Amino acid sequence: MEQVLSDNLVISIDAMGGDNSPRVVIEGLVEASLKNPDVRFLVYGDEGKVKPLLNKYPRLKEKCELRHATEVVRNEDKPSQVIRNRNTSMYMAIDAVRRGEAKAIVSAGNTGALMAISKLSLKTIQKIHRPAIVTIMPSIAGKYVMLDLGANTECDALNLAEFALMGNIVAQHALGIARPRVGLLNIGAEDMKGKEEIKQAAQIIKNSHMNIEFVGFVEPHDLPFGKADVVVADGFTGNIALKSIEGAAKLIMTKIKNAIKTSPLAILGLPFMMGVKLKLKKSLDPRLYNGAMFVGLNGLSVKSHGGTDALGYSVAVGHAISMVRQDFVATIREELEHVDLDELSQEIIYDAY
Amino acid sequence: MEQVLSDNLVISIDAMGGDNSPRVVIEGLVEASLKNPDVRFLVYGDEGKVKPLLNKYPRLKEKCELRHATEVVRNEDKPSQVIRNRNTSMYMAIDAVRRGEAKAIVSAGNTGALMAISKLSLKTIQKIHRPAIVTIMPSIAGKYVMLDLGANTECDALNLAEFALMGNIVAQHALGIARPRVGLLNIGAEDMKGKEEIKQAAQIIKNSHMNIEFVGFVEPHDLPFGKADVVVADGFTGNIALKSIEGAAKLIMTKIKNAIKTSPLAILGLPFMMGVKLKLKKSLDPRLYNGAMFVGLNGLSVKSHGGTDALGYSVAVGHAISMVRQDFVATIREELEHVDLDELSQEIIYDAY
Repeated sequence: MEQVLSDNLVISIDAMGGDNSPRVVIEGLVEASLKNPDVRFLVYGDEGKVKPLLNKYPRLKEKCELRHATEVVRNEDKPSQVIRNRNTSMYMAIDAVRRGEAKAIVSAGNTGALMAISKLSLKTIQKIHRPAIVTIMPSIAGKYVMLDLGANTECDALNLAEFALMGNIVAQHALGIARPRVGLLNIGAEDMKGKEEIKQAAQIIKNSHMNIEFVGFVEPHDLPFGKADVVVADGFTGNIALKSIEGAAKLIMTKIKNAIKTSPLAILGLPFMMGVKLKLKKSLDPRLYNGAMFVGLNGLSVKSHGGTDALGYSVAVGHAISMVRQDFVATIREELEHVDLDELSQEIIYDAY
Repeated sequence: MEQVLSDNLVISIDAMGGDNSPRVVIEGLVEASLKNPDVRFLVYGDEGKVKPLLNKYPRLKEKCELRHATEVVRNEDKPSQVIRNRNTSMYMAIDAVRRGEAKAIVSAGNTGALMAISKLSLKTIQKIHRPAIVTIMPSIAGKYVMLDLGANTECDALNLAEFALMGNIVAQHALGIARPRVGLLNIGAEDMKGKEEIKQAAQIIKNSHMNIEFVGFVEPHDLPFGKADVVVADGFTGNIALKSIEGAAKLIMTKIKNAIKTSPLAILGLPFMMGVKLKLKKSLDPRLYNGAMFVGLNGLSVKSHGGTDALGYSVAVGHAISMVRQDFVATIREELEHVDLDELSQEIIYDAY
């Protein structure tokens, strides 16, 4: 089993996070492993609970090394507590990335805890000032990535420019877009619109030697229509946009369900609509967009939704695998060699005064 | 016709703003007038175009006084230009409110121009520091009001507290809710979440003698589920939330249409779904939520969507009428007599340092 870990593609797994762990986690790994037979997993969790599950899936078991963790991070635990307990499955799974045994860690546990331990243990990449949370969103014709979704409530222009650089690489690695179009989320498309830090970030990106296709400002109602492949915002704004989209989707789906329930004729028509339902599920199913990636650290942390199922969990693991396969962190480091965002941002911010 | 204007309920109308003006405007007034036979209109626009339309609707014509305006604000005009031209239908219609001939003005024209002229001409209510843009949004079981939607990119805690005070009165007057629940839009419900100014605004609202039911922080995905009747944000955040909701709604509706188009069986099932379609239209039709109100000025300005139809325009006019009927501006002034937000906010903001 030791030989398993000598290969490059190893993902560290916190088997204990999430509502139905470790069952959903192991079932998710079965799916992920079928699609990625070359990947190995380091699985951290309660041996008494995880081992019987792995025994059910011998082909997955071959790809896993199970490591016993005596404790679990609970949803109500505060970040300040969890960073001091090195015996939790989450801490141990992240520490495997720090030690270089794995390149990414996936957890369905407490988000704040995952971010706190990841930052403390993995540390930010040199020349990157702030890590960000990034996820993949559905659009009419495809997908786009959006960041930051809440790691940083306040951001300056330099932070936003760094998010653009990292988001560009996420879109390349996770969406397979060779030259992603990168935009800054704003309340208007014109140059003079929005907050000072957004306008300055546009200047930094334009004047840097970052190798990105910058498309300027994008407005939230344009996101579904493919105006950009990468959407950059501070964590407060990104979180507001993400949750507003979630709320609107729930509102419409609930209204549709209620309208069908109260229309006897519609109930008769439902069998005709099965194809529509399937198609919608295929493109808008939240499980297909599961997985928030913490980027900017020396290693990748991926947060799966706590309430997801095996399919959703396998999608989150799939993101981790795509990014690791192309060595995401090394790509960021390389890109940073060509640009000095720090100096450029100082020039541009001073120029404004 | 002079006698018409001696009554209280007079609304000033910019007949020339919007994509199909003045036709849509006049047709919208026909609808609004049917529901509000006691209301009179001061109609500003090109006499040659507006008069023939009014002649088609003699019952509406009786309620209108048409005043000729030689010029029109165009969509591409800059606020700095339009405030200097007193001969446009928009300027003249707003000026009627300043002179006290009408209590509210409705325009489907250029938003920036309407805000600029309204601010310059009507001025902010004494003790209110910033006007805000407010609109009515759909939820699962009803409606809520949200402000600011973009008048102020940056806001401090005092501005947010003032928006709460005004939003509360809008919900009372426009939605008929006796004691609206007022919340601050934030990225978490816990006290320590979000930006400093939002936390301080919560303190100001809690400690003021404002007569409002404050429910604390609300997150964007909770808005459709009736967590608050009034949602308060700075103009940047409110605009991001509004446009994200619009984008998500368009995404889902487009996905549904595309799925139906490509499912032959679904096309057969469509007749069964007519009731569902009607019910959705009844509760989510954007025309029913038309009308952005500029509040905090000595008079009310209502912006109708430029591309709306007669029904949508009549909804915007209906908001103006509800608010004027209950003397919205006087209610704000009365409420401000009981509270000294300025002093309170200084105490709270100093306390934080």
